[in-house]
Amino acid sequence: MSATTSLHQSAAILVIGNEVLSGRTREANAYLAAQKLFERGCKLSEIVVVPDIKNEIIDGLNRLRHRYDAVITSGGIGPTHDDITMDAIAESFDVSLLEHQETIAKLHVHYGDDINVGRRRMARLPETAKPIICEKSFMPGAHIDNVYVLAGVPEIFASQLETFLNHFGGKPYIRHEIEVNVPESLFAEALENIQAQFPDVEIGSYPRLCGKKACGKICLSAKDAILLEKATNKVSQMLSNICGS
Amino acid sequence: MSATTSLHQSAAILVIGNEVLSGRTREANAYLAAQKLFERGCKLSEIVVVPDIKNEIIDGLNRLRHRYDAVITSGGIGPTHDDITMDAIAESFDVSLLEHQETIAKLHVHYGDDINVGRRRMARLPETAKPIICEKSFMPGAHIDNVYVLAGVPEIFASQLETFLNHFGGKPYIRHEIEVNVPESLFAEALENIQAQFPDVEIGSYPRLCGKKACGKICLSAKDAILLEKATNKVSQMLSNICGS
Repeated sequence: MSATTSLHQSAAILVIGNEVLSGRTREANAYLAAQKLFERGCKLSEIVVVPDIKNEIIDGLNRLRHRYDAVITSGGIGPTHDDITMDAIAESFDVSLLEHQETIAKLHVHYGDDINVGRRRMARLPETAKPIICEKSFMPGAHIDNVYVLAGVPEIFASQLETFLNHFGGKPYIRHEIEVNVPESLFAEALENIQAQFPDVEIGSYPRLCGKKACGKICLSAKDAILLEKATNKVSQMLSNICGS
Repeated sequence: MSATTSLHQSAAILVIGNEVLSGRTREANAYLAAQKLFERGCKLSEIVVVPDIKNEIIDGLNRLRHRYDAVITSGGIGPTHDDITMDAIAESFDVSLLEHQETIAKLHVHYGDDINVGRRRMARLPETAKPIICEKSFMPGAHIDNVYVLAGVPEIFASQLETFLNHFGGKPYIRHEIEVNVPESLFAEALENIQAQFPDVEIGSYPRLCGKKACGKICLSAKDAILLEKATNKVSQMLSNICGS
């Protein structure tokens, strides 16, 4: 992406994985990408997990890619029958899947003449896509229009993600967290007032259960460090007023 | 739910949470619910994470509740300004929010006359909803039509979930896992053939990176134990043929 192209300011993540929906696997890739996008200052607006069913992938992708600046997908690009993400992407964009010749050449170097059907399958890319090449795997992800198609294996997903994160955001978000030891209901109104004063700071309250005691955190995030500092000070002051009262 | 009412056979989970989208929090409630629904034999078909924005919650909810037998929501029912799930649910069903009198009565017992605005806010339920009462919190979740509205605090979510899991599924799924030490591409075709022979068994292949060696698991799940046993034996046989060849 050239410096003159605008960076993606909003994004969604589409996870393709029966293993997540069946509770077998705790999702890790969307969690990683969420952190990376936050650090880049790109607003992650939605995460969706769909099963390994082509029409479900296509429906999810079409909804998300028209709604947000960019979509990152995770999973379903291996060689087995349940790996149908590339097929779904190609169908969504109405293009063919073609073998990526540089990948085929690499496979020949590594395996000689014997490239099996599974490996050839993994070398396919949508016709108009660019490969996403990382250090962790021969097999490419795909970048097509505003969609980035990544592997589900966490180490490969992470490595592929790093190659194009500079397409996203621009100015990082910063987060402050304040530990709280009073019930939320005691500061809810005051916190709402502060939120109203700082519409460009996102303020959230996250209680936990700590036995009989109330506890939790108030989190503030923004791109503007000075504004964030001001809002954080307001919240701290408000909390100490409550605790002192 | 009476014994004659049909149980929910498909479900979606809607997570309301800026903290998940910003990468602050690794999602835990959908992961727990996915496991519980699998054990109950209910097909979890989609997980969606949306921000604390009312229209986003309503859009997500309306799409999911018309598409699946049931929807479980997580988060956004506390007393602070970012807790707007009950408002969104009420708007989605076009009903009012009313204070739940039994909850108000409990609050009076606990706090005397001094029930603050935040606690009153948490006692609100959509007019036609039934409260979901659990051991971990005074404050109710809500069951309205085919939607179950739960807290985001994991211990409360888990406790509320247990109170209505018997509305879901009926016949449990069973899962078998087989450890694999050969590259997926070597068994992809054979595994596809086995999947074709057992359409009622869900077969997935989940590779990992283990240094230079290929490794991973093949997972099979089904409701029919005999069918699952047969398919598992086929896969084991197929793998030992490959390893012996």
